[in-house]
Amino acid sequence: MSRIADRGAATPAEARAAFRDGLVEPTSGWSRGYAQANVLAIPREQAFDLLLFAQRNPKSCPILSVLEPGETTGPLLAGGDIRTDVPKYTVYRDGEKVDEPTDITGHWRDDLVTFLIGCSFTFEAALQDGGVRIAHIDQGVNVPMFRTNRECAPAGAMSGPLVVSMRPVPAAQVADAVRITSRYPAVHGAPVHIGNPDELGISDLGAPDFGEAVRIPEGHLPVFWACGVTPQAAVMRSRPPLAIGHAPGHMLITDARDSDYLVP
Amino acid sequence: MSRIADRGAATPAEARAAFRDGLVEPTSGWSRGYAQANVLAIPREQAFDLLLFAQRNPKSCPILSVLEPGETTGPLLAGGDIRTDVPKYTVYRDGEKVDEPTDITGHWRDDLVTFLIGCSFTFEAALQDGGVRIAHIDQGVNVPMFRTNRECAPAGAMSGPLVVSMRPVPAAQVADAVRITSRYPAVHGAPVHIGNPDELGISDLGAPDFGEAVRIPEGHLPVFWACGVTPQAAVMRSRPPLAIGHAPGHMLITDARDSDYLVP
Repeated sequence: MSRIADRGAATPAEARAAFRDGLVEPTSGWSRGYAQANVLAIPREQAFDLLLFAQRNPKSCPILSVLEPGETTGPLLAGGDIRTDVPKYTVYRDGEKVDEPTDITGHWRDDLVTFLIGCSFTFEAALQDGGVRIAHIDQGVNVPMFRTNRECAPAGAMSGPLVVSMRPVPAAQVADAVRITSRYPAVHGAPVHIGNPDELGISDLGAPDFGEAVRIPEGHLPVFWACGVTPQAAVMRSRPPLAIGHAPGHMLITDARDSDYLVP
Repeated sequence: MSRIADRGAATPAEARAAFRDGLVEPTSGWSRGYAQANVLAIPREQAFDLLLFAQRNPKSCPILSVLEPGETTGPLLAGGDIRTDVPKYTVYRDGEKVDEPTDITGHWRDDLVTFLIGCSFTFEAALQDGGVRIAHIDQGVNVPMFRTNRECAPAGAMSGPLVVSMRPVPAAQVADAVRITSRYPAVHGAPVHIGNPDELGISDLGAPDFGEAVRIPEGHLPVFWACGVTPQAAVMRSRPPLAIGHAPGHMLITDARDSDYLVP
């Protein structure tokens, strides 16, 4: 296991080093106070469509940073390497998942453009500070994520459904959860839906499309936030020759502070 | 001259039709209550760099909409045509201005991607409603715009200086002007600088790089807002084979309402 005793206290550089050294686990709860990011690398030829897709769907695809073609590091991961510093990756060829490696050095190409997209793990510490417990942390599982029946605005060849993450929240705290997360628009902001999964086309909360199921405690409502796995769902639909994302829930831990993305 | 008697009362469709029919004049004060947009069309091959440049410089290049390659209309200009509906255009080849036509049909290519970028004319009605007079409207001239000594964040081949528009504001109303315009981040938002043009590398307020000089009344401070001509300055520096923008101050009048871009 890891050399890191307290995941919440690890600095981003320590966390990235642990993942680079081979630790594999979801990153919720890691490096408290620092922003986490969804990762998607795509060839330069498809990058315009993906960037436009993100621009047209800012709720699910809020861009924190874009690395130029072939770049493997940047200001959000000082001294890091995007090919090794994420706990686990998903490699797609022609839209099909072909590999889930812990290092993508062997898949890397110099024309890959890497998108870093905001992640709702970033506002979980603020929710906890506001007295809202995070069920998937309490239950020790990855956050559950679902494809919805809502279509994103397409861009060029890129189209796909909105993907959401779900957190159960006590009815009395739903307003707090909305208020707190709405102050973090760069990491998905306020929920997109509260309380009725059927309306999103989700028939079984116990069978998420990504991540793991959480038990919904009595008196809690399911609350749904837009999720940065959305562009990976678009990759599956749109089938670019190559795309490499993080494995859902296994994020890049960045050097940016949560508070960098806090609005008044 | 125009068939339109009251420019402020013209609907966006009427304004676009007047420009399509050959009217040429700056658009400040037109179609009160509707958003205006900077226009820049660039070949698909250079569009990723421009989109990334805009993403990295949101204050000067806030994207309202991007038309897909070859598209000439879109939801912000219902029934319109981006090739004819702007009063005057600037055509660049290899970064050099080669034409200032009132119609770009002859320059059009099917691989051109058109960016519509927020324009500070959009918040001028709100400034007026707040009691702040607009000097260039009162003086009947185009707004003055200046290249500054501030570099934008580059993206791929695209780099250039920040361009600003300048409006003189009475000292007692500068705070009002900040407060009012900060509520419109999608159309440049709050000023980038107040009061000292030297710090922006502007040596002579009477000699703007684009638009026309305005007289600065006694007791007024020059207030500078980021300007959507910034990507055209990047085109001049970065020299893509073809780029077509609006002529500075001669904007696209869109169907979006100013209030669509108002934040709380």
